[in-house]
Amino acid sequence: MDVLETIFTRRSIRKFTGEPIRDEDLKTILKAGFQAPSAHNYQPREYIVVRDKETIKKISEFHKYAKMLPKAGCGIIVCGNKDKQPEMGFLIEDCSASIQNILLAAHGLGLGAVWCGLYSVEKLTEDMKDALELPENIIPIGMVVVGVKDEEKVAIDRYDESKVHFG
Amino acid sequence: MDVLETIFTRRSIRKFTGEPIRDEDLKTILKAGFQAPSAHNYQPREYIVVRDKETIKKISEFHKYAKMLPKAGCGIIVCGNKDKQPEMGFLIEDCSASIQNILLAAHGLGLGAVWCGLYSVEKLTEDMKDALELPENIIPIGMVVVGVKDEEKVAIDRYDESKVHFG
Repeated sequence: MDVLETIFTRRSIRKFTGEPIRDEDLKTILKAGFQAPSAHNYQPREYIVVRDKETIKKISEFHKYAKMLPKAGCGIIVCGNKDKQPEMGFLIEDCSASIQNILLAAHGLGLGAVWCGLYSVEKLTEDMKDALELPENIIPIGMVVVGVKDEEKVAIDRYDESKVHFG
Repeated sequence: MDVLETIFTRRSIRKFTGEPIRDEDLKTILKAGFQAPSAHNYQPREYIVVRDKETIKKISEFHKYAKMLPKAGCGIIVCGNKDKQPEMGFLIEDCSASIQNILLAAHGLGLGAVWCGLYSVEKLTEDMKDALELPENIIPIGMVVVGVKDEEKVAIDRYDESKVHFG
């Protein structure tokens, strides 16, 4: 799908059929994540793919906006390694750019995906660290829930001229 | 251009011809920025477009990685309104997702662009606030320098399997 069309038609998808996504698609999505820019090219990102039922259940229990994770069947938690990028703003930015690529790649492949926020909500960040048994230096920034979609949403034009300033 | 091809071939472009970009392309790029997801749909982003020579000169003087801005001719500073989103992590994430859309849209249109980091480097953030005379609640998160490119870069495959974990 054309990049502009992908950007303009992407929506957060929260209903899934329950079918697993193909390994090949998962790899394409992850590769897209790696292609996002990284401040000073430090590449401080780590990707945790969660597909086992037990971990999925645990996450969907503590994250109230991730109740669709079990049905989707796959979560990608994008984490920042603060030993590689101690500037927290840049760490979040690197991970967020990567998440956006992941969302667009999923949509481009015809899959559904939604970004479930983690950092900087302390409880969500800590609960995710516990669930994944992450070391202290690895910060879970956000999770993308991805799966075979069971809803179609119409595109929304979100342009708001009042927020554009020529300075 | 196909979204996956766009993601995989995008590179940071720092050499520009000096030709101005078309208003139509600028608007498409900005529209792409607005289409990024936003935590709780708060939409806390503001976009400052800088094309006047004086402001451009000022920015390129304090930001050592924005020396190409005068030649590019256009900077888009993506800001977060912390009154609309007080959770700083989410504010940075919203702006970063938007910046990534902007970078991909520019590349999809055949233009060159590069993300110049601002937040959370205090001096860069403060200098940008001063240069743009931003109110206290508006935080400049990052700047995209965009223009007509004067270099072609080959795609780099940044996938690194050691950073993918199945947990």
